[in-house]
Amino acid sequence: MSLDPKRTVAELKELRSLTGDENGAQRVAWTHTWLCAREWFAKKLAELPVEQHYDAAGNDWATLAGASEKCLLIGGHLDSVPNGGWLDGALNVLAGLEVLRRFTSEFRGRPPVTIRLVDWADEEGARFGRSLLGSSAFAGTHSIAADRVRTDREGTKLEDALRRCGVEIDRFPEAEPERKNVQAYLELHIEQGPVLEQLDLPLGVVLGTKGVERHTIIFYGQEAHSGSTPMNARRDALASAAKLALEIRGIARKHPDAVCTMGSVKTFPGIATAVVGRCEAILDQRDLDPHVLGEMYAEAKAASRRFAEEEKCTVEWSRLWNIEPVPFHPDLLNLCEQAVHEVSGTSHRMPSGPLHDAAEVSRAGIPTVMMFVQSLRGISHNKIEDTREDHLELAVTALDRLASKTVDWILRRN
Amino acid sequence: MSLDPKRTVAELKELRSLTGDENGAQRVAWTHTWLCAREWFAKKLAELPVEQHYDAAGNDWATLAGASEKCLLIGGHLDSVPNGGWLDGALNVLAGLEVLRRFTSEFRGRPPVTIRLVDWADEEGARFGRSLLGSSAFAGTHSIAADRVRTDREGTKLEDALRRCGVEIDRFPEAEPERKNVQAYLELHIEQGPVLEQLDLPLGVVLGTKGVERHTIIFYGQEAHSGSTPMNARRDALASAAKLALEIRGIARKHPDAVCTMGSVKTFPGIATAVVGRCEAILDQRDLDPHVLGEMYAEAKAASRRFAEEEKCTVEWSRLWNIEPVPFHPDLLNLCEQAVHEVSGTSHRMPSGPLHDAAEVSRAGIPTVMMFVQSLRGISHNKIEDTREDHLELAVTALDRLASKTVDWILRRN
Repeated sequence: MSLDPKRTVAELKELRSLTGDENGAQRVAWTHTWLCAREWFAKKLAELPVEQHYDAAGNDWATLAGASEKCLLIGGHLDSVPNGGWLDGALNVLAGLEVLRRFTSEFRGRPPVTIRLVDWADEEGARFGRSLLGSSAFAGTHSIAADRVRTDREGTKLEDALRRCGVEIDRFPEAEPERKNVQAYLELHIEQGPVLEQLDLPLGVVLGTKGVERHTIIFYGQEAHSGSTPMNARRDALASAAKLALEIRGIARKHPDAVCTMGSVKTFPGIATAVVGRCEAILDQRDLDPHVLGEMYAEAKAASRRFAEEEKCTVEWSRLWNIEPVPFHPDLLNLCEQAVHEVSGTSHRMPSGPLHDAAEVSRAGIPTVMMFVQSLRGISHNKIEDTREDHLELAVTALDRLASKTVDWILRRN
Repeated sequence: MSLDPKRTVAELKELRSLTGDENGAQRVAWTHTWLCAREWFAKKLAELPVEQHYDAAGNDWATLAGASEKCLLIGGHLDSVPNGGWLDGALNVLAGLEVLRRFTSEFRGRPPVTIRLVDWADEEGARFGRSLLGSSAFAGTHSIAADRVRTDREGTKLEDALRRCGVEIDRFPEAEPERKNVQAYLELHIEQGPVLEQLDLPLGVVLGTKGVERHTIIFYGQEAHSGSTPMNARRDALASAAKLALEIRGIARKHPDAVCTMGSVKTFPGIATAVVGRCEAILDQRDLDPHVLGEMYAEAKAASRRFAEEEKCTVEWSRLWNIEPVPFHPDLLNLCEQAVHEVSGTSHRMPSGPLHDAAEVSRAGIPTVMMFVQSLRGISHNKIEDTREDHLELAVTALDRLASKTVDWILRRN
């Protein structure tokens, strides 16, 4: 079988009809629909001479043994957010499957190095708020104690949901040996942003994943009656937050690729008849440069204190989460650029704002690179998420070329 | 029995211990605790030579028949918000009770005009979001069709909750005849704002209730990934709302007593990883002058459109509710000023920002005035709502003096 990118598109559609509904993809990790997607995928793998197993964290591994134990790993995730898109995560897995087929065929089942494909468990963290769960177990960066007690909206504990899928959170460390012999990791993903579309490019080379500083910021003012409290007697927590919502934009714009987002604002008591006494905002700041990230965080904090003072409020910050920037491997960036250039005649390097399993793999010390394919309208995590089919096909071809180049690089390197 | 303002304070405490808990007053209309409060109050009334009945809207009437059928009406409300204060509404009723006792005693049960005391049903609208329910039935401004289907948090319909208390919403119009012979209406209330405390005055003369324009304002931008969407490619609905939250303050400050409040902001999807695609804000604007109110509304609307355009968003306004300003009766304002001056040596005229049943009574064409007593810290609708006891006693005395002056005014007038 030679590489057939059209088959990947057809399989993506097949998966969509099996696991999506009128609201989009419903492959939320640790649910029945997700298990159905994995069962469907297992049948595809069964047609190939690969060994398949689940590791202790629920990651799904397919291994095509090569002449060398040294291994090229390609990964993605079949899980989606609720009402998600048809491509986010699944494209990576199914493009990887096609590459696996091509290696099987070209080398009659025995390529020069071992080729592995992984479907990471729970990349999205949609149900329990913990993304990159499976890949963090692989990388040894898991946080079992903090994660086991997470609950979903119905109050189900993460550890119980995992157990129903045959995964014991206490055994996560047993997923780490899967790292053995992995010499390089490749991940294709939709961009989930508008940059490639604006540049009219089908594909991009991903420099790394931006670091993230994510904080809850609570402004405390004084709840007071909307009708009876003169304007000059107010301590309006919303006013402080509104100033910060506007200020963060200038803070981000000082740097070319930096972003600052206030994605959530909650007002308390949150009624027409009361001045806001407490306002809770979530601020998410990202950049590929750790110095820029640190500077933006400090600037936002200082601004929030200034605004709180101006409004006779107080402010408290608490870190929700953070991750350092993860730059990808320089050699693999070059190989990716060559592959993209060969199939599309041009190439563009860009950071990834969203996080990906690739960041966890890279943190484990494995040379890593990602390739982006254009997203239409920059939309993802939504049923209208889409990519032109000719671009999807180009992406499969480019990933395949990158895989071949990386196999050569692994052989050359050792 | 001569007037005993200390008894009013004692009775307020008695009511608090009967119907409050560690979180504050729990006399939410149409609940068991509210019915308990009314039962307790009925026992107090039973000691007086008054006729007592509930009208078709659940308002509780006590009538001390006088030499003339012409009637002075004093009113308040025993219902509270959940976790409310001990004074809001109940002070009015219990001060009125004390005045009724004094009239009974002074005129041996037959004052020159009829004196009536009313405990309005569901002033707060805390459970179904419809305030002034009983007084609007009295005034004939009820909105039965719109209100009957309102539901509380548990999904109970307003009409069903009323029925359980023996009130049929279809019979609301039968409350209107209670207006017969009512020549004047008096209502004492805590200020619920900081103005009298700032001026160091115990009592205030209320010019009227401010008109209210209350709107939901929805800004539509584009939900987009926080990490992958460059700052210059965003259509951030929160940014538009933040600009408006700050702008409304300047709009209000052009006018001495005007207020504009954004009490609620909701962000959608409201998560760290998405630029806000939709932002819903509630704007509440109030002034005693209808021209000022109209001007502020137009200015806020124009500003919101300007901000939406700047942020590449769109904006939609929908009116949640409005009420015109209700100025109180000039003769009664003068009498109230005299009464306040006699007991406190000074007086101050001020508008009421919060609405009161007095507004509904005045809209029915009945000469009306209100008196405010100082609120500590301007706080109400909260367990920490409070007023100095000597101020409460002064307020009972001033209300009593106002009642006498108003009886004279009724007699003079006809």
